[in-house]
Amino acid sequence: MMVPVQVVGIGQCACDLIGALAVYPQVDQKSELQHLNIEGGGPVASALVALRRLDISCAIRGRIGGDDFGDRIRAGLVTEGVDCNGLYVDRNGSSQVAFIVVDDAGRRTIFCHRGNSRPLQADDIDPEQIAAARILHLDGQQSDAALAAARIARDHGVVTVLDGGTLRDQTWPLLPLIDHLVVSEAFARQYAGAGTPEQQLAQLLETGAQAAVITAGPAGCWGQEPGCAVQHQPAFSLPVVDTTGCGDAFHGGYIYGLLQGWGLVERMRFAAAVAALKTRDFGGRRALPALAEVEAFLSTQAQ
Amino acid sequence: MMVPVQVVGIGQCACDLIGALAVYPQVDQKSELQHLNIEGGGPVASALVALRRLDISCAIRGRIGGDDFGDRIRAGLVTEGVDCNGLYVDRNGSSQVAFIVVDDAGRRTIFCHRGNSRPLQADDIDPEQIAAARILHLDGQQSDAALAAARIARDHGVVTVLDGGTLRDQTWPLLPLIDHLVVSEAFARQYAGAGTPEQQLAQLLETGAQAAVITAGPAGCWGQEPGCAVQHQPAFSLPVVDTTGCGDAFHGGYIYGLLQGWGLVERMRFAAAVAALKTRDFGGRRALPALAEVEAFLSTQAQ
Repeated sequence: MMVPVQVVGIGQCACDLIGALAVYPQVDQKSELQHLNIEGGGPVASALVALRRLDISCAIRGRIGGDDFGDRIRAGLVTEGVDCNGLYVDRNGSSQVAFIVVDDAGRRTIFCHRGNSRPLQADDIDPEQIAAARILHLDGQQSDAALAAARIARDHGVVTVLDGGTLRDQTWPLLPLIDHLVVSEAFARQYAGAGTPEQQLAQLLETGAQAAVITAGPAGCWGQEPGCAVQHQPAFSLPVVDTTGCGDAFHGGYIYGLLQGWGLVERMRFAAAVAALKTRDFGGRRALPALAEVEAFLSTQAQ
Repeated sequence: MMVPVQVVGIGQCACDLIGALAVYPQVDQKSELQHLNIEGGGPVASALVALRRLDISCAIRGRIGGDDFGDRIRAGLVTEGVDCNGLYVDRNGSSQVAFIVVDDAGRRTIFCHRGNSRPLQADDIDPEQIAAARILHLDGQQSDAALAAARIARDHGVVTVLDGGTLRDQTWPLLPLIDHLVVSEAFARQYAGAGTPEQQLAQLLETGAQAAVITAGPAGCWGQEPGCAVQHQPAFSLPVVDTTGCGDAFHGGYIYGLLQGWGLVERMRFAAAVAALKTRDFGGRRALPALAEVEAFLSTQAQ
């Protein structure tokens, strides 16, 4: 019998190769990487890992290629205790791979290859698993499956959270089914045009979401619930080694807050702390904090 | 009983990840790779693959890490029929990995991580294998093993060829033991200072080599034997997809010519043809030609 998990995630799973160097090279140059860190990535997948560090049960649905990178992606999730029974393998497909170069200033240059694994289909999801979960987390990729899952979630009162990185054509039908729109500055601009966070949030809430949040890296984040004031949460300032996956960490922290029944301000503050603590080390996952670390960190910060 | 191979190579084995994109990104940007080609690399290793395509028996000595990349490196050589009995694995080490970005103009930007596998030691080589070979090919890496092997080669009349890419401290003791110095422009400049190819060749021949060649990409190559005139071989002009590994291909072609007993001019011409044909496809190895292809190509070119 299936044990229900608290959070089901559907999204793109990638293998990240993260190389560190002093100075990003000009075209046609050769440079030496000081580190090369290889690990799983992908917005939803890494958010689930953040949640696992906070001791939340999670399952992923996605598809990887039948290659070494796929093996690494799975191993990285299994090690963290993410349920991977729904992480399917396209034997003849190749996995998504991202090569991420981080310079001494913490700037990231990303080379991404999408691979050619078959996308997840609507019938690859498990309706019972979703109906039994408390939260469905989506990143707008694997869109057929995501849409089918969001409909099931809506029918069963399962809360839906979207990590909006880039607004794609296939994202639009998903938006009315999303309860928490937690999006990047780029997504907000694509959706609502140039404008203040306040203007953009007002438009984002027109989808019918219960809350909208715009994350803006070192500028912090802005969030709003319908009929309430816009809230701003500054980013916590820590010495940054690597910002890879900060957005994913933020989503993990935000979902943790939802599961605790916290209000928007508290969710954003906790999420910002998880994201800040993640920057302590290279890669999207290595420095993701345990709950006690987040609590200890927040206790040192002014409210 | 060991079957002697014609060419023994000692050098660095790497796994190359070669990504193709339209325009090389500025720092802090994200870009999409159109292709991602994963294959073995390393100067000597790829030269041996070039020789295998020309039906020459080869063995490699080197060390790889106990990781997926090491598995890929070995598989890439085994598939081509390179004897890998001397390709040792450092179970706890990581393999050398190079991420190579090729833009639409065919320019290559290289990010290299050396890994941390133990270097090959002098007692990791097989003196009998070297003594029984006709040619020992070195790239100046794995230097302790290379030096020991070059001494054995010298004692047994085995011809030594050095692929000089970068002149390192540990390359110097090797130089007097090298019969054919086939080096990059960068190496020639490091060794002989700025100057004409003629001036640089004169200095390179002071090591006692039987021939020195400087490869200069699209400018072709210059070569000389002691007491003879400098020869120039223009690069053959073909539509270039990717120049990765052209130098390695050149070395394979040059060594093939040595095995046939050809003179310097003929060796350089054949080597230039192998290098030109390699540029037809992505990666350092995919388009390496069979003998019939080289012969057919050369028959269409003016002598």
